[in-house]
Amino acid sequence: MSALKTPIIDSGDIEQKRDEIRKYFLTTWELYESLFETLKDDSVFYERPEPLRHPLIFYFGHTATFFVNKLMVAKIIDQRVDANAESMLAIGVDEMSWDDLDDAHYDWPSAKTVREYRNKVKALVEGLIDTLPLTLPIQWEDPFWIIMMGIEHERIHLETSSVLIRQLPLRLVKHHPNWQRYSSSSTAPQNTLLDVAGGLVTQGRTEPSSTYGWDNEYGELETEVTHFKASEYLVSNQEFLAFIEDKGYQTESYWTEEGWNWLQFTKAKHPPFWLKDKNNYQYRTMLEEIDMPWDWPADVNYLEAKAFCNWMSAKRNKKIRLPTEAEWIHLSDLNLEFDHVGRLDSKANIDFNYGASACPVSTFKQKDFYDVTGNVWQWTETAIDGFEGFKVHPAYDDFSVPTFDGRHNLIKGGSWASTGNETIRESRYAFRRHFIQHAGFRYIESNEDVSQDFNTYETDELISQYLEFHYGDEYFGVKNFPKACIDTIFEKGKELKFDRALDLGCAVGRSSFELATRFKQVDAVDFSTRFIRNAESLSEHGSVRYLITDEGELSTFKQVSLDDLGLQETAKRIHFSQGDACNLKPLYKNYDLIFAGNLIDRLYEPALFLESVHERLNAGGLLVLTSPYTWLEEFTKKENWIGGIKVNGENVTTLDGLHEMLKAHFEAYAEPIDVPFVIRETARKHQHTVAQMTFWKK
Amino acid sequence: MSALKTPIIDSGDIEQKRDEIRKYFLTTWELYESLFETLKDDSVFYERPEPLRHPLIFYFGHTATFFVNKLMVAKIIDQRVDANAESMLAIGVDEMSWDDLDDAHYDWPSAKTVREYRNKVKALVEGLIDTLPLTLPIQWEDPFWIIMMGIEHERIHLETSSVLIRQLPLRLVKHHPNWQRYSSSSTAPQNTLLDVAGGLVTQGRTEPSSTYGWDNEYGELETEVTHFKASEYLVSNQEFLAFIEDKGYQTESYWTEEGWNWLQFTKAKHPPFWLKDKNNYQYRTMLEEIDMPWDWPADVNYLEAKAFCNWMSAKRNKKIRLPTEAEWIHLSDLNLEFDHVGRLDSKANIDFNYGASACPVSTFKQKDFYDVTGNVWQWTETAIDGFEGFKVHPAYDDFSVPTFDGRHNLIKGGSWASTGNETIRESRYAFRRHFIQHAGFRYIESNEDVSQDFNTYETDELISQYLEFHYGDEYFGVKNFPKACIDTIFEKGKELKFDRALDLGCAVGRSSFELATRFKQVDAVDFSTRFIRNAESLSEHGSVRYLITDEGELSTFKQVSLDDLGLQETAKRIHFSQGDACNLKPLYKNYDLIFAGNLIDRLYEPALFLESVHERLNAGGLLVLTSPYTWLEEFTKKENWIGGIKVNGENVTTLDGLHEMLKAHFEAYAEPIDVPFVIRETARKHQHTVAQMTFWKK
Repeated sequence: MSALKTPIIDSGDIEQKRDEIRKYFLTTWELYESLFETLKDDSVFYERPEPLRHPLIFYFGHTATFFVNKLMVAKIIDQRVDANAESMLAIGVDEMSWDDLDDAHYDWPSAKTVREYRNKVKALVEGLIDTLPLTLPIQWEDPFWIIMMGIEHERIHLETSSVLIRQLPLRLVKHHPNWQRYSSSSTAPQNTLLDVAGGLVTQGRTEPSSTYGWDNEYGELETEVTHFKASEYLVSNQEFLAFIEDKGYQTESYWTEEGWNWLQFTKAKHPPFWLKDKNNYQYRTMLEEIDMPWDWPADVNYLEAKAFCNWMSAKRNKKIRLPTEAEWIHLSDLNLEFDHVGRLDSKANIDFNYGASACPVSTFKQKDFYDVTGNVWQWTETAIDGFEGFKVHPAYDDFSVPTFDGRHNLIKGGSWASTGNETIRESRYAFRRHFIQHAGFRYIESNEDVSQDFNTYETDELISQYLEFHYGDEYFGVKNFPKACIDTIFEKGKELKFDRALDLGCAVGRSSFELATRFKQVDAVDFSTRFIRNAESLSEHGSVRYLITDEGELSTFKQVSLDDLGLQETAKRIHFSQGDACNLKPLYKNYDLIFAGNLIDRLYEPALFLESVHERLNAGGLLVLTSPYTWLEEFTKKENWIGGIKVNGENVTTLDGLHEMLKAHFEAYAEPIDVPFVIRETARKHQHTVAQMTFWKK
Repeated sequence: MSALKTPIIDSGDIEQKRDEIRKYFLTTWELYESLFETLKDDSVFYERPEPLRHPLIFYFGHTATFFVNKLMVAKIIDQRVDANAESMLAIGVDEMSWDDLDDAHYDWPSAKTVREYRNKVKALVEGLIDTLPLTLPIQWEDPFWIIMMGIEHERIHLETSSVLIRQLPLRLVKHHPNWQRYSSSSTAPQNTLLDVAGGLVTQGRTEPSSTYGWDNEYGELETEVTHFKASEYLVSNQEFLAFIEDKGYQTESYWTEEGWNWLQFTKAKHPPFWLKDKNNYQYRTMLEEIDMPWDWPADVNYLEAKAFCNWMSAKRNKKIRLPTEAEWIHLSDLNLEFDHVGRLDSKANIDFNYGASACPVSTFKQKDFYDVTGNVWQWTETAIDGFEGFKVHPAYDDFSVPTFDGRHNLIKGGSWASTGNETIRESRYAFRRHFIQHAGFRYIESNEDVSQDFNTYETDELISQYLEFHYGDEYFGVKNFPKACIDTIFEKGKELKFDRALDLGCAVGRSSFELATRFKQVDAVDFSTRFIRNAESLSEHGSVRYLITDEGELSTFKQVSLDDLGLQETAKRIHFSQGDACNLKPLYKNYDLIFAGNLIDRLYEPALFLESVHERLNAGGLLVLTSPYTWLEEFTKKENWIGGIKVNGENVTTLDGLHEMLKAHFEAYAEPIDVPFVIRETARKHQHTVAQMTFWKK
């Protein structure tokens, strides 16, 4: 059995490159088909080994349909191969919770149909590999990128389908010469913790890259990793048994809340591929049940791995946990060898090199540690996230973004079934923490706590609109509104004292950051906890990501950072908090500036704010208001409108009302000016508004 | 008793003009105060002679408050004289139905307070007349226009308050030397119908004008009046008695529906100032009850006058009715004499010249007719409306517009209590048809039916936004969208046959009018009856008026005309009708062009339209779509979206969906282009959207 490494795509001879890619495609294609030859007969295609997923027939056809769909999306082809089959075979079921069973009714095509369909698609792709324009490097927007994407996508399914087959009842699979297991096992070695010196870890690739990469691999991340100890071996079945025997699966305190919930649902008492027969454990490989190979790595999910670490921490009174992604990369950088484009050179149980199973944890020593890569994937503490500068690949916009939710943890290192992109240094795959893969773990001891305060992406439409409004692109040539407001204040308020500013109604915070470029302290308050949470999150993480609606349910992923806006160092001078401008705590006082941007027509009783705001300003301080005076009963009862009303039969504008309400304590400081703003609703629809900015000196 | 004519304001010596205006002000002021000297004592100020209106104390103070309010609005003064009193005395109650009683509780100021208040305001206005800048002509925006407005406003209330006093119980009024009635009466003359030759009537004034005018007097109107006969005399009490005795007040068939409803509510059996004592009728003047003066004009409202005409039509089997405004003006132009600025020169019972009452209908012969003007106002068939080019005066924006509702009929000619602007040729006053004034009528015989299809102004916010979108101003420099679309079609579709076009989703119709500049026939269809009604109304009247929101409840009156847009002659080629693009009648077919502007994302099932639209086009015909693809579940269930969706996991844009849906019958005819549009929501808030325009050739 052989599986080629992922091709180099930035250099070489063009026609040789076509050959290489054709071979890479065919190997993958045939390997994938061969995998399904392990099914006892065609009826097994309609079994659903994992109740959370489609039956196997879907996966058999899906990797072909994926090619067609992406070729259509990229407008490389404009005719489907089989619209009917493709509508059935397009969308997997991967994002579910453990109790969301896939019980929809589907009218699946026959195995024969899918085989014929696969043949057609194979011919199509081969033809395209022969004829599509090819220049090196192959870049994101090139047709050949789509070809590579299709191949690497099939390699992922090669592995995940092997997991599904491993979940089938034994009676439904058969022996196959391509899929032999590793043959020997023995007693497990004693595991020990070895020192790993700290260091700086850099991750992320830039375009153009030497090999194909998924979008989540691009961008940059630097992490300072402190000294830790790591287990010499992966946790073997032997080592894991101690946890089971010590009532690990019955002791709630070892489990995370999520883990315990999962345990209550599944009633698991041991790892998924263990079979208990009275007091003996058997072990399920892809196609066989064998006596427990005690020195092979334990296949567990994150929740089980984490419970094991907590158990071990308790027993040893040490801080034992899984490595973070950065710690894993650091360990890998210290112990593995890669070729000049980052493909693994060390020997390891990957690429089916040593059969279709794991092997003893003591088989592959890579410098100081065993199985730094290969054998089984290794769960990490890190939920997958985009690097700084992450951009979605337009042809596969839901590959990564839906997993940036804090609930998908990275697995690293690859397994015996990992090939192609899966085994390179930069690869980044993540699964829900309860999912079953050929995955286990290595534990570490570290004083560094990991509590990933996950910077999840905002999907709420209103908040995303505001994030784009404050930090995103400019539309119709209208300048960024919060920045324009604060720039104007700086320009007009030259003689102001720049000590303390209050940003009332700060929303998602841009004006607060801008104020903090000059003010020593900025208090930023908004009524909406959701707005404030986003502002705070940006302040903490330095970046924020959100989805903006393009058209209907289609959306674009956006990420903005304080750094890009030159605001990174302002965050420390801002204190964000939730508050009510109509009933603000007394502590908000002694300001040199109070800015209330687009606030007054959203207050339930603006007079409460306007008639007391002078108490919070220092003498000579400036109150600056902006508003489009969009009074709506929804926000402000009509009897509380400051203007835009008839009083005794005469028109009273909001500006009139402001003068009336503020004249006792303020003088108008400058002429009102108009400041336009645009809020994007979809790619084509916007609110375009002109706020009036007024200046009031105490 | 003397009342000056309204001053000439476009010529003369400045200081003499100040004197003249001061005199005009003081006369009015003193006359008005003198009117209230007819009250028995100060307690009568708190009586409410007309249950639909405030008590007299309000009217006593109101004319002073009006000066202050308008001076404030025009920013001539910036301090109120008495904010408390002014908040009470600002808004009258004039726009009610007969069953909307004014039963709000008010804490009215004392008569003493109001007298002192009036004195302060008098001194203020006198001071302003002496000192405000004065240039001739006095124009709308001049401070002196506000002074004139205040004086003319008081003259209106001089008359309407005299009506209220006439409605007080006799025991609450007292004799006053200034307010003596006309002394004699006799038998009424026999009324006959005299011929009036037809002719062209022109109305409306332009700025600057020679005398003060209310905003509704400006603009232009030309009316071709056909021959009619008019009664020689106003209808006398004697003549009206025949109607009463013939059970006129009991016979439903003589009354309009509105009139009969009013009658059911009031249970009236004779005109309001008639008093029945057994079989004798007495008559109420302002301050006395006297034996019925049979030859004085009958004071009735429009509903009674109209019932009288219908009764007479039935009796004589002729078409008897009230004159229209134009017919009245025509009669007046033929019989009256005016000075060079349009002030009445003919002798007539106006200006209190002959006491505080009417006089016999045979007293004032003006050429062929008696009382063409004066004695009592004359009700017309015409509901008041703005002339072409009507503009609201910004300092009094609710003087006219609220009466342009088809429910306020014009009264013409003035009464014995009419002075100043009320008696000039151009004056235009209107009241609810059931209101009591010193008003009666002259009837005419004419074959010309009057059915005023009233072009009421649109107040619905959405429709007004659309009218402004289609016919109003351009915002942010974005060109008128419907016109831009049709211009583009004309430009791209040079080889089109320009016979028949279908405008589907025409909304308020601009694109239909634009299409009809080239197409011989345009069918215009919209799902919304309210949109279609506005489009039709514009087509019929040539103009349309609406209120656009500026800020809160403040709004601006707008009027647009096909003429101004160069589209007047297109209307006859368009047929507007309500219809459903998803279920269109078969008769809509054989078109050379089908334009569907911003339609598809508002259809409940766009496929029904898109998959059959080719059947309605001629071979070689063009389908043009525009849309911002703003899919919303509110309009279109998600399963019916054409695009903006994930299909089998892949993004399908609406453009993709359109290609898919139309490719069987169309070819893409030109590259899609972007066409921006702006919909104004308030003076400061807009929707700014970019539609995509696509071209499909059958």
